[in-house]
Amino acid sequence: MISQTVEYALRAIVTIAQHEGRACTAKKLAEITQVPLPYLSKLMQGLVRGGLVTSQRGLHGGFLLTRDLGNLTILDVVNVVEPIKRILHCPLNIQSHGTNLCPLHRRLDNAIAATEKVFRETTVVEMLSEPGSVTPLCEVQKLISLGVGSGAGVKSRPVARQSKSKKK
Amino acid sequence: MISQTVEYALRAIVTIAQHEGRACTAKKLAEITQVPLPYLSKLMQGLVRGGLVTSQRGLHGGFLLTRDLGNLTILDVVNVVEPIKRILHCPLNIQSHGTNLCPLHRRLDNAIAATEKVFRETTVVEMLSEPGSVTPLCEVQKLISLGVGSGAGVKSRPVARQSKSKKK
Repeated sequence: MISQTVEYALRAIVTIAQHEGRACTAKKLAEITQVPLPYLSKLMQGLVRGGLVTSQRGLHGGFLLTRDLGNLTILDVVNVVEPIKRILHCPLNIQSHGTNLCPLHRRLDNAIAATEKVFRETTVVEMLSEPGSVTPLCEVQKLISLGVGSGAGVKSRPVARQSKSKKK
Repeated sequence: MISQTVEYALRAIVTIAQHEGRACTAKKLAEITQVPLPYLSKLMQGLVRGGLVTSQRGLHGGFLLTRDLGNLTILDVVNVVEPIKRILHCPLNIQSHGTNLCPLHRRLDNAIAATEKVFRETTVVEMLSEPGSVTPLCEVQKLISLGVGSGAGVKSRPVARQSKSKKK
């Protein structure tokens, strides 16, 4: 139902968000997201073209998000990578159906709509600040050893660049 | 979100159901569902292997459903064609997450669950008997010309074999 490409794109977006405004290199992204570098590079080109991410060159270069995390939803990312296609008219082009979907296609569209709703209602900042949950894509032990804490109950963009994180 | 193969399989199942217990040939199925015959034939092999459909040989041969329409759900069909995969543990194999999904993967699984719920809650008989809606996969004008009525308000399996349908 959710393609690997979409899932990988979301891993990348969440990881960049966790860097709290500091650019994240493709190599670092590939390491944290566990996405093969060539696949990730292609994916990042799409996210840049889609306007969600910008690429910064130079010594402290890497990828940055262009949008406010509080407004950036899962749906925004999905619709850049593989836009959700609702069923708006009869796929069989039955003229008498028109925009009145038959019960089969109505149910299928309801299922797509239910997915779209979950995606629309979740912002990146919500995913990063959910109390009592594990931190997205991060190993708790790693965080503890880096002095970042357990990852639970953080308020926003909690993980920054792991190698430079400090205890808050 | 919903693959063409799944959508085609549902068209086939609904069409066989509309034949009210009479076998439906592959040629007739291909015509009504608008699925290319070679594609449909392969799809039907899968539905036979999955136990949803049986193939009857001979003069009045064709495909028949094996299950009661009141118990056959969209989910049953989907799970034979392309089983829904829930996210049961961390896709990054982060050991400290275990079965506690992070907020990203929890949301993705919620979206899959929402789709699964719509599919689980709809039986084939419900799709065929929905009052006030257009008949699945059928052209109203065709039905009227065949004396079947408008397709609205029918109670169950309304369309039978179109070429032999009689006014009820």
